[in-house]
Amino acid sequence: MNVRIAKNSGFCFGVKRAINMALEAAHTHDSIVTLGPIIHNPQMVAKLSEEGIVSIEETSEIYGRPTIIRSHGVKKETLQQLLHDKIEIINATCPYVSKAQEQAQILSKEGYQVIIMGDKDHPEVKALRSYLDGEVIIVENAGELPVKKFGKIGIICQTTRNITDLENLVQKLIPQSHEIRIINTICNATSVRQTSTIDLARKSDLMIVIGGRNSSNTKMLAKISEKYAVTYHIETEREIECKWFNHVYDIGITAGASTPDWIIVEVYNKIIECMGNQGNKVDNIEDIPGFKEDE
Amino acid sequence: MNVRIAKNSGFCFGVKRAINMALEAAHTHDSIVTLGPIIHNPQMVAKLSEEGIVSIEETSEIYGRPTIIRSHGVKKETLQQLLHDKIEIINATCPYVSKAQEQAQILSKEGYQVIIMGDKDHPEVKALRSYLDGEVIIVENAGELPVKKFGKIGIICQTTRNITDLENLVQKLIPQSHEIRIINTICNATSVRQTSTIDLARKSDLMIVIGGRNSSNTKMLAKISEKYAVTYHIETEREIECKWFNHVYDIGITAGASTPDWIIVEVYNKIIECMGNQGNKVDNIEDIPGFKEDE
Repeated sequence: MNVRIAKNSGFCFGVKRAINMALEAAHTHDSIVTLGPIIHNPQMVAKLSEEGIVSIEETSEIYGRPTIIRSHGVKKETLQQLLHDKIEIINATCPYVSKAQEQAQILSKEGYQVIIMGDKDHPEVKALRSYLDGEVIIVENAGELPVKKFGKIGIICQTTRNITDLENLVQKLIPQSHEIRIINTICNATSVRQTSTIDLARKSDLMIVIGGRNSSNTKMLAKISEKYAVTYHIETEREIECKWFNHVYDIGITAGASTPDWIIVEVYNKIIECMGNQGNKVDNIEDIPGFKEDE
Repeated sequence: MNVRIAKNSGFCFGVKRAINMALEAAHTHDSIVTLGPIIHNPQMVAKLSEEGIVSIEETSEIYGRPTIIRSHGVKKETLQQLLHDKIEIINATCPYVSKAQEQAQILSKEGYQVIIMGDKDHPEVKALRSYLDGEVIIVENAGELPVKKFGKIGIICQTTRNITDLENLVQKLIPQSHEIRIINTICNATSVRQTSTIDLARKSDLMIVIGGRNSSNTKMLAKISEKYAVTYHIETEREIECKWFNHVYDIGITAGASTPDWIIVEVYNKIIECMGNQGNKVDNIEDIPGFKEDE
């Protein structure tokens, strides 16, 4: 039996950066909050709360404490309120998300009817939308597009979406529009995780996708993986049932951009344990066959 | 046996306009030239020469005569030279072609790497290219695209291209580019002629596509038609061989945007003659079954 990990798995640049900023801030402040979970991984959020970094939901719960802006960003008006209230801000918004917000504003200013490809209930999309004036269309895919003629369409994406969905969206819009301006804000880490997942799922009988149930990019990995292999989306090793691996030869592991290494290692070791192969357990993600650090 | 015409066939708005402008100018001038054939239909060009409208190839042949700019437009520098030489200009450039030239300039000014989808040897594309600064990539389809990463890509099309080719081009570029701005300059008359041709070719055993061999939009109709039925691209009824219609039940006719009505009528009547059915000959394109004037 083979157990391999997709070569690009786990923490991306933006998540690593946000966690580091939060931990550094916690060292120099007695009490600190994040407005919404800093990343979409409940286990990591719980771990940070042990360091005194408390996740709150509303600005009314800040009580003057220094506030970390989550990696997904916050609405423009929320940021303005914090500034108005003279709250100390530690802005851990992923730079790729900030860039998308800037570019959304350009589309809006230049008179484009903007379409966001993303999940309208996701905090990143809610924040992105707040940077746009007027009517904005938010769709998950081409199937949700209204059938009508457009003049100038601007398209911007939630950073964790799938490029094939973007291609299909644009294909459908071309005959409906005079001009289309596409800002491909799907981040590179998202694309490489998806490609690595496809590569591994193609070679696997069963795939374990690890990450928060609220993590958009992890859900997307699971959705993609399902096309090629039996797939289980789990948050931690405690959900694993050894019987899943009966009569299975090639097992693949992949993990979302907000999944910490230690959880991936625990999952790998649990699978090894299921296989009755204790000697092959590892201490670090780098030791799992197939792993390769992002370039 | 059925003989039908694609409902949108023959002269488009831009061609009608150019011919009318040329004929009007010929009424008020003794001697007049067009710089290159005014439209891509040798028979119509020959007819216009009988009205004193002479097609020349080079500005050196103008000798001070009033000059008609062909429907496909001319290079920016040619137009500048005519203005400099104080030549009287009758600008019969199709307004959709002029619009594409304007939009090309915008893309160029705003720092886009421009890709023209079109035939690099076609006068419309040569003219369009002259309005762009710096390096320009000209491709007929996605297959000709260079494999490399792009920053900001601007796409503009020869007005007579196919929308499916544009969709495929954009699909290929999305993963290669950070930003893509597509100006869909494929003209509506082109699209409706293509759609009507597909509709009719699907119901036909054999298709006759009428138009200049140098006519880009006619060649595109023939290329599209070939996918659905046996197709002959002809310029006039003299090329027809009656044996083509042996054992054929449904015959379709379509014609490019630069094909005059009288040629279409002659082709229809020749087919009727081949079928030994003289009584069904027509005098006007409107009397050919299936014809519908552009809206």
